Amino acid sequence: MLKSGATIGILGGGQLGRMLALAAANLGYRTHIYSPEENSCAFDVAHVITKAPYEDEKALAEFAQVVDVITYEFENVPAATATFLAARKQVLPDPRVLEATQDRLIEKDFVKGLKIPTAPYAPVHSATQLAEGIEKVGLPAVLKTRTLGYDGKGQAKIAKAADAIDAWRSVKNAPCILEGFVKFQREVSVVAARDKAGKVVCFDITENQHRDHILKVSRVPARVPPSTEREARRIATKIADALDYVGVLAVEMFAVKRGRATELLVNEIAPRVHNSGHWTIDGATVSQFEQHIRAIAGLPLGKPLRLGRVEMINLIGAEIEEATRWMKVPGASVHVYGKKEARPGRKMGHVTRVRPQR
Amino acid sequence: MLKSGATIGILGGGQLGRMLALAAANLGYRTHIYSPEENSCAFDVAHVITKAPYEDEKALAEFAQVVDVITYEFENVPAATATFLAARKQVLPDPRVLEATQDRLIEKDFVKGLKIPTAPYAPVHSATQLAEGIEKVGLPAVLKTRTLGYDGKGQAKIAKAADAIDAWRSVKNAPCILEGFVKFQREVSVVAARDKAGKVVCFDITENQHRDHILKVSRVPARVPPSTEREARRIATKIADALDYVGVLAVEMFAVKRGRATELLVNEIAPRVHNSGHWTIDGATVSQFEQHIRAIAGLPLGKPLRLGRVEMINLIGAEIEEATRWMKVPGASVHVYGKKEARPGRKMGHVTRVRPQR
Repeated sequence: MLKSGATIGILGGGQLGRMLALAAANLGYRTHIYSPEENSCAFDVAHVITKAPYEDEKALAEFAQVVDVITYEFENVPAATATFLAARKQVLPDPRVLEATQDRLIEKDFVKGLKIPTAPYAPVHSATQLAEGIEKVGLPAVLKTRTLGYDGKGQAKIAKAADAIDAWRSVKNAPCILEGFVKFQREVSVVAARDKAGKVVCFDITENQHRDHILKVSRVPARVPPSTEREARRIATKIADALDYVGVLAVEMFAVKRGRATELLVNEIAPRVHNSGHWTIDGATVSQFEQHIRAIAGLPLGKPLRLGRVEMINLIGAEIEEATRWMKVPGASVHVYGKKEARPGRKMGHVTRVRPQR
Repeated sequence: MLKSGATIGILGGGQLGRMLALAAANLGYRTHIYSPEENSCAFDVAHVITKAPYEDEKALAEFAQVVDVITYEFENVPAATATFLAARKQVLPDPRVLEATQDRLIEKDFVKGLKIPTAPYAPVHSATQLAEGIEKVGLPAVLKTRTLGYDGKGQAKIAKAADAIDAWRSVKNAPCILEGFVKFQREVSVVAARDKAGKVVCFDITENQHRDHILKVSRVPARVPPSTEREARRIATKIADALDYVGVLAVEMFAVKRGRATELLVNEIAPRVHNSGHWTIDGATVSQFEQHIRAIAGLPLGKPLRLGRVEMINLIGAEIEEATRWMKVPGASVHVYGKKEARPGRKMGHVTRVRPQR
């Protein structure tokens, strides 16, 4: 168990790192943010910062020396960086979970291996395999690069067979996966925390609405039957256990109507705190950021209570200008990430509304 | 209105400064903490720090240069420091409010001037005046130094006339005030925010329990009649308006039974965020810390909604060791201030419990 005053090292300097640092401060810990980006918004709230490339072994070695544990706020940590650090200081979650989550194909195979349903999928490493994949998975489908995509980047929709050629060209020969399009009733997620002893605590299942592939609104409670909520928690727990995970992860799922029943298909696993869990800062008695810090610091996980009906709205790009107006709305909690440039599609802040009545 | 990325300068590096810095970060602002203490717990979460005496004009001038507004987290800011800074950068709340609040006698006269009741009181600058004061105010009474006391320091109780001599000796000729002992039913407080436009927003009246002169437990809702709550808010608003205050202040009051009615007597005014308002971090949709930052930054005040029945418990001295145990309690939000030494009587952290049901 890390004592008060210990330093949490965080790889990555975006808003997730920023909010992790604020949660760590609440628990009496210092943070040291390591990021290559000059204007990392997490730098503002850290006790110490290192601005250096992820390949800089000297900087990494010094970082590992001065922190008490290392974590990351984005899943595309280069394998060499993670290995180098893990040889010098404990990295949590263990970097080997990144193997299961950095590659969409490996991720799907992993979930399938746990007997958990996913969208139909096929590997695509050539135009020929793309044609075979379309046969297997059907259309419409989405061609995604196996690695490095997020928020809609690195993917191409194939609505009809004629789209296949352009889709294949657009990914420029990168190794891909073809996923069958899922006609879902809802997109949901479960954010779960698992500690070193293997205890798992899940937040309430969250309903998510995307716009242009980026999360726009999250709502709790989700409009799914209680049995679906239980199933979602069971899935998240099973995944966390199978990864021997320490920290917070998020499992995004599709809720699909099958007659009168609802089936859950796992879409993606994020081995980190997640946008769909931001509502927990204001809408629950312990946030996902704090659960993550508690888990990696060896502190007991909290049992969060939800404080009402909660809605989180992302402020993306120029929408950050709405922040001041939101501040006047009764019951609105406004979060501004302190980023300099409000580029289109960039997550600049969020607003959470909690309605105390049940 | 300060833009995102602006820097809030804070005089003082204790837990109030720390929590103000965390709230500022939530709004996208950076903080620069100025404190003479090596181990200021607010240093850990600031973007920039200055460790220098309050008399160091060179350091103060540099500080004023690089921040966009200055505030303070403790009321005993030396007048010379406040004046020096205010000549160079806007200080909010305006340092002239400190004249009314740094001196208990001036404070009582100010409140009396607003036709707001206080405990009976008398100035005491000599043994003779002490005897006259006891005649006027009655016994039991408390002899308090006019300036610099807090958490029970700088005061001596006079239960019977024979105690007077020892009490006068113990204050070592410091200018004093004699306050009549109030037989209160409850101790309460109102934390209020006032913005540059003069708008006032009050949090719910809070019921406070002290132990050895230090706040131990705060509860909301307070056990007072609705008319008393309205009166308390009216008193806090009147005081904030009279001071032309910008920021958050707290007014501590005694609730005294007069037959079937309840009378409120003002005890103390704190021109800053206050321990009895910590519950607002987890128990309301906007915290006192955020309201203070919004006010001084020229942002609109929030209209906070209370999220349930709330209880805040201070962790004082060695009690901080209970923090880990509290982390397991469902619904408990634990705050650790990151201070190195758990000295007796020292505020080391707090726990807030929110019960969502009404």
